[in-house]
Amino acid sequence: MPRWSNMIEDLVSRVTEIGSTMLVNNQQGDITLSQQCEALLSNLGEATGLARSKEILDAFKDLDQAQKLDFFQTLCRDFGVDNQALKQALDAWQKEPNDEHTRNIHFASEPRSQELVRRLNLAPGGTAALVSLREDLILHMKKKPELSALDQDIRHLFSSWFNRGFLRLERIDWSTSANILEKIIAYEAVHEIQGWDDLRRRVAAQDRRLYAFFHPSLVDDPLIFVEVALTSDMPDTIGTILAEDRQDLNLQEATTAVFYSISNCQAGLRGISFGNFLIKQVVEELKRELPNLKRFVTMSPVPGLRRWAHAGSELAQQHQGVINALDQETSLFQPEFMAAQQDALSKLAACYLLDAKNKKDRPYDPVSNFHLGNGARLQQINLWADRSERGQSNSWGVMVNYEYDLAYIEKNHEAFLCEGVISASSQVRKLYKNN
Amino acid sequence: MPRWSNMIEDLVSRVTEIGSTMLVNNQQGDITLSQQCEALLSNLGEATGLARSKEILDAFKDLDQAQKLDFFQTLCRDFGVDNQALKQALDAWQKEPNDEHTRNIHFASEPRSQELVRRLNLAPGGTAALVSLREDLILHMKKKPELSALDQDIRHLFSSWFNRGFLRLERIDWSTSANILEKIIAYEAVHEIQGWDDLRRRVAAQDRRLYAFFHPSLVDDPLIFVEVALTSDMPDTIGTILAEDRQDLNLQEATTAVFYSISNCQAGLRGISFGNFLIKQVVEELKRELPNLKRFVTMSPVPGLRRWAHAGSELAQQHQGVINALDQETSLFQPEFMAAQQDALSKLAACYLLDAKNKKDRPYDPVSNFHLGNGARLQQINLWADRSERGQSNSWGVMVNYEYDLAYIEKNHEAFLCEGVISASSQVRKLYKNN
Amino acid sequence: MPRWSNMIEDLVSRVTEIGSTMLVNNQQGDITLSQQCEALLSNLGEATGLARSKEILDAFKDLDQAQKLDFFQTLCRDFGVDNQALKQALDAWQKEPNDEHTRNIHFASEPRSQELVRRLNLAPGGTAALVSLREDLILHMKKKPELSALDQDIRHLFSSWFNRGFLRLERIDWSTSANILEKIIAYEAVHEIQGWDDLRRRVAAQDRRLYAFFHPSLVDDPLIFVEVALTSDMPDTIGTILAEDRQDLNLQEATTAVFYSISNCQAGLRGISFGNFLIKQVVEELKRELPNLKRFVTMSPVPGLRRWAHAGSELAQQHQGVINALDQETSLFQPEFMAAQQDALSKLAACYLLDAKNKKDRPYDPVSNFHLGNGARLQQINLWADRSERGQSNSWGVMVNYEYDLAYIEKNHEAFLCEGVISASSQVRKLYKNN
Amino acid sequence: MPRWSNMIEDLVSRVTEIGSTMLVNNQQGDITLSQQCEALLSNLGEATGLARSKEILDAFKDLDQAQKLDFFQTLCRDFGVDNQALKQALDAWQKEPNDEHTRNIHFASEPRSQELVRRLNLAPGGTAALVSLREDLILHMKKKPELSALDQDIRHLFSSWFNRGFLRLERIDWSTSANILEKIIAYEAVHEIQGWDDLRRRVAAQDRRLYAFFHPSLVDDPLIFVEVALTSDMPDTIGTILAEDRQDLNLQEATTAVFYSISNCQAGLRGISFGNFLIKQVVEELKRELPNLKRFVTMSPVPGLRRWAHAGSELAQQHQGVINALDQETSLFQPEFMAAQQDALSKLAACYLLDAKNKKDRPYDPVSNFHLGNGARLQQINLWADRSERGQSNSWGVMVNYEYDLAYIEKNHEAFLCEGVISASSQVRKLYKNN
Repeated sequence: MPRWSNMIEDLVSRVTEIGSTMLVNNQQGDITLSQQCEALLSNLGEATGLARSKEILDAFKDLDQAQKLDFFQTLCRDFGVDNQALKQALDAWQKEPNDEHTRNIHFASEPRSQELVRRLNLAPGGTAALVSLREDLILHMKKKPELSALDQDIRHLFSSWFNRGFLRLERIDWSTSANILEKIIAYEAVHEIQGWDDLRRRVAAQDRRLYAFFHPSLVDDPLIFVEVALTSDMPDTIGTILAEDRQDLNLQEATTAVFYSISNCQAGLRGISFGNFLIKQVVEELKRELPNLKRFVTMSPVPGLRRWAHAGSELAQQHQGVINALDQETSLFQPEFMAAQQDALSKLAACYLLDAKNKKDRPYDPVSNFHLGNGARLQQINLWADRSERGQSNSWGVMVNYEYDLAYIEKNHEAFLCEGVISASSQVRKLYKNN
Repeated sequence: MPRWSNMIEDLVSRVTEIGSTMLVNNQQGDITLSQQCEALLSNLGEATGLARSKEILDAFKDLDQAQKLDFFQTLCRDFGVDNQALKQALDAWQKEPNDEHTRNIHFASEPRSQELVRRLNLAPGGTAALVSLREDLILHMKKKPELSALDQDIRHLFSSWFNRGFLRLERIDWSTSANILEKIIAYEAVHEIQGWDDLRRRVAAQDRRLYAFFHPSLVDDPLIFVEVALTSDMPDTIGTILAEDRQDLNLQEATTAVFYSISNCQAGLRGISFGNFLIKQVVEELKRELPNLKRFVTMSPVPGLRRWAHAGSELAQQHQGVINALDQETSLFQPEFMAAQQDALSKLAACYLLDAKNKKDRPYDPVSNFHLGNGARLQQINLWADRSERGQSNSWGVMVNYEYDLAYIEKNHEAFLCEGVISASSQVRKLYKNN
Repeated sequence: MPRWSNMIEDLVSRVTEIGSTMLVNNQQGDITLSQQCEALLSNLGEATGLARSKEILDAFKDLDQAQKLDFFQTLCRDFGVDNQALKQALDAWQKEPNDEHTRNIHFASEPRSQELVRRLNLAPGGTAALVSLREDLILHMKKKPELSALDQDIRHLFSSWFNRGFLRLERIDWSTSANILEKIIAYEAVHEIQGWDDLRRRVAAQDRRLYAFFHPSLVDDPLIFVEVALTSDMPDTIGTILAEDRQDLNLQEATTAVFYSISNCQAGLRGISFGNFLIKQVVEELKRELPNLKRFVTMSPVPGLRRWAHAGSELAQQHQGVINALDQETSLFQPEFMAAQQDALSKLAACYLLDAKNKKDRPYDPVSNFHLGNGARLQQINLWADRSERGQSNSWGVMVNYEYDLAYIEKNHEAFLCEGVISASSQVRKLYKNN
Repeated sequence: MPRWSNMIEDLVSRVTEIGSTMLVNNQQGDITLSQQCEALLSNLGEATGLARSKEILDAFKDLDQAQKLDFFQTLCRDFGVDNQALKQALDAWQKEPNDEHTRNIHFASEPRSQELVRRLNLAPGGTAALVSLREDLILHMKKKPELSALDQDIRHLFSSWFNRGFLRLERIDWSTSANILEKIIAYEAVHEIQGWDDLRRRVAAQDRRLYAFFHPSLVDDPLIFVEVALTSDMPDTIGTILAEDRQDLNLQEATTAVFYSISNCQAGLRGISFGNFLIKQVVEELKRELPNLKRFVTMSPVPGLRRWAHAGSELAQQHQGVINALDQETSLFQPEFMAAQQDALSKLAACYLLDAKNKKDRPYDPVSNFHLGNGARLQQINLWADRSERGQSNSWGVMVNYEYDLAYIEKNHEAFLCEGVISASSQVRKLYKNN
């Protein structure tokens, strides 16, 4: 029997005691007594609790994956709702369905895992350890969907702890400390950073920016970051942005901010969304610093295009000709080939972006879903724009500019969420109509 | 109809929509859909929500107290549990009482005010505004106890947001910024700070320390602070500590850290306890800085003594002689009077501290309750120790040293909480037995 | 014989040794040897030198003023030029007056007190201690003008150490640390700060600014600071600026920055001028922050007016009528009296500011001299503008606005320095002509 | 005629004017007048001077090396001592050789280049630009030794500006900003840093330290740094310290701090010595942080050994056997070869370190000279200790531990400087005697 098991047992027994004590007091209607007991009982946890929380989190870190799965399953099974407490609360409510009794149902039905996670969080470094624990949990959830109940509890608490008001926007540049910069290198998920020289080009050039959100409990460890290029035009290829030997743009000539990469850093915070806030706050920041900026656009991948093209939908089959041509060509970026497929690929991409839906009847493409959900407009489709291996295998090199047009963000956002309307430029819309 | 009313209505309608949408998805068992919808719906809130939250909090600030009460009552009445959603969840659970349905009861029975407060918190400055809002709520609760349901919701969220892991301990000294220092002057609740010169004596002298907890969302505004005097002996009067003209102690001679004042700063955080953590972390800090320190004691008031003495308990009546003598004397600190009452007052105080209970059968004295609950020992009773007006009117000048003896804290803490055992020095115990 | 005397002797003997060694090497024409020896000899100083420098500076601090004077006189007498070394250098130069021999004269004639002060400066806190030492020296110089030779040596080094490139401009506001703020209160020399509340009004109001220069060796101790009021008009009285109950100006309406007080903080840095740089850098800072600002003016005292009026110059005697009237009136600011003297006092002030000279044929008024020397224009004379006791006793309440008109600063500055031209507004000039 | 020439001329004419004006005033004995004029004249420089200084420094940066040489020669020729002023001062002194006249010689004989450099220093970024300028000057001095007069002037001022009191010690670690760290990589001169991974090993490991001196005018640009390894023993080879795959030492076991690399960063500050101060301050810092440290030693190269061995001295010829053997061996670190030459090489090294002198009769080895001059003891000779190419070509791999034994530093330092005594361990001394 592993060592942490005893500790959990011990912590559990306290938690149980606290839970039921609270309920009893509430049932007696003695709210002030209940509050006193709550304070008293939470004191009970402090003294031995902190040390024990630390021990549990340390012990967890040393488990192998099989033991971790076992641990998660134990939590799921034994730390659910306290059924007896729930029954009592329901009985009271049925006898007299007043407001107080209704509210008591909420407290009585709280899965005990929530209080457990709250207590674990009090240990020094607890928040970071829990984010890492949830990373493991998400891994196991793929094969054991029943763990999602536990995950939901943790995510509920994370939503609260990582709420937007606690985040701090920071610009990352060449004066940032190396321990943060090396994390940026590691976390970049869209266009991989090739070591320190590449990083330097992305953060130290006068026409480049990198902004990240930080949380007070994850010291020197970003939650999410976005990379920005300042340009004189909306770009139609990622290559010019990432080029090693390009010339820096004079800031007076910069009219356009291009968000060319957004990376979530903490796998354990999946489902807690920061991207929308980040983009909008960075737009504010850039407008303040550089009043000349007129446009805020992205240079975004289209990660689902090729997968969708092969998934056999009726819509995709209408474009089978170009799909076959692209699949059979081993060297996509030859001038003749590009010229020949230009029109058909444009139409395929427009059709995919405007019409392809997932099971929930939302845009099939996750990146598209994200930016349209934020209120951006689908501004321009760029063929042959990402010639990297990943770009080819995801979308035959197609990329998209989404535009954050401040005058329309709210309207687009509402129309998209309420009625599913996709905002697109006339240029893109025309490609689609020509189908 | 006030302006905020419309805004609330508007926010409410969203919240309702969100709440029920969530439930529907959960009921369909489509957890992934539910998660997507949750993300999507919380996006819905972001765009217009932030601005609206800000408007609500700004509007609230400008209400008069009658309007605020009306607002709180509206929230209590209309933002309780969504009864229909709860009913659906209960129906599903009764048909098939599995884990998932049980958990859904918890989410379906969440008072809608919780989601509302979470959303208000997202506005810039939202947390501080909510702390201030709760300060008003607590005021009204005295006359309208039914508001405590709403208060419980807010307190539940505050416990999460102000959890110990998010707090930062900082030493306050003469290099601290004036805007923080002026708050210290305003917040000191035990021994009032008489302006900047008095403050200077308390933070700039080499044998004085002041430590505070800060939270990232309340910038430059402390949550709680403690004042410490470094001495060569455990003091028996507060006068020598606060004296204007005293000689600073050479730090090499300091053996004792005296916690002579603890002040909670935010009335809106009542019931969220930081004091225990603060004292223990300051002890760690001081031990690291000054390895010579051997004892950690308090110089504490006895705020309930005189009130208890007049409350008519049987126990108090056994000391009626000295109580009468003290009440009739207008000038307590004359040597003859002090000599005459010394023994009787000592016994009265010992009896009060060791035996007087409140309704919950805990120590009557709140300060005693706090330190004993933290695991401290009742070390010494000091007569004629606080000659200020407050000191006289609360306790005829009696003060107490509680000792934080690191080797015994855990044991004392457990014994006190589980069995009600009060740890006391033999000296104090002897006074009591001599009764 | 005091303790420091031995130490000085000891240090002297080293210094002498070093000085002469250097010369010998130089005379041999062996420059590389000389450089090596110099490095080597300065190493000699490091080891024991630092400790000894510290001892000397500590010992000096404890001397009484008589001992300090004695010390200064000793330095003056015994640490002058090394006559023998000078003679050798001159002999060499006369035999062969080449460049090198000429340069050697410079080094050989350096008063040994310079090297001494350089070495004292190496002690931890040495710079601050020397600034304080010079403060004492300046005091004694009043009665012992022969000490000015020593003072000149120190000032020469201070000019180098406190050069403009090493200064750091900082805004002082309510987030500044208390230990700096209390120095601001102490140092304000023009319009005394009446405690912390008054200070708060001057640094925390949105339409007030305070900027200071700091030097890396005087930590948390400003060299000079300037107080600025942001207004919608050029003021004609100091009272509205210092009023306790005034309304803050909305920054959008601020068009004018008024420099209403400049205070030098370190008496020991007399003669090292920072004011010109400070004003100009603050103008840059304010223009950057508030592009709406159009005018940069002062609200300045006229400290020499009344003294000059009584000094018996022919020019003053032409205004004897108004001078007598002002002197005889005990209550200057009665409406009738003010109305009656208005014209005559205006003329007197204009005449003083435009025509009164000191012995060096420069403007008699030191404040006028300072601002005109910086390139400012004498813009407006304000009667009855400073009703404080000091204002009355210095200038019967007269104040002046000098304007820093960026387009003319350079021209004014040159014309004033080279030809003594005083730049004045037509309004002021007209008053003068009407005489 | 280049553009800067006019600007120089212009600045020169001001400087001349100032110089002579000062002298005249001094000669008249009107010291107060002189002080006023000095302030006034230095004001004259401020307005136009700052801009002009900036222009000169900017223009200089764009010159090619031939133009720079021309510029330096012009300065040397035309900015020497003002001969006429000097003559006047000497005349006055000869007539009446009083103290004041003697001191005036010093000021009158100051090369005008000094005032010029002082004024250039006032430009924003002036100090850094002058450090860079001197770097060029030192380059040209190698072929044009007559430029050393100019260099001496600049160095004289640099000694003053870069005095020890203005330097700030900072620990460099993995939380340091990338722009400083990349300079560390570039500046390391002893054991080259092979990119960011190697740097990480040297600054981020718990048993490694790197400390640097900074000056307020060279922002984010270190002057000198030292790398330290914390070990449990005095090392006898550099390889174990620099190894990529070594195990970090637990700090509790660290008893020895090894200074294994000291690098000067600014070629333009040659001859301004910081190393002694740096080592001693780092020793203080380490002792405070890690009271367990008992020994402070270096792991130093012996850069002059092989050069000296071939320079043909009588002393070296006594070791011709081993010298020939080492020279003929292409693969020095074969066990048999090392065993065979061990004794002879030890004796050669001991003899070199204890007896080989340079022209000034100081130790031939510059590194030895530096550490012995600081008061260190020659503790141990390590054969085959630096197997890098540089190590072989400089000293056949020999390295030395110098020990900074705090109880003896002062004594060693004095004995070395005054009498040339080399402090060495008995072990090293024995090797020498066995010769």
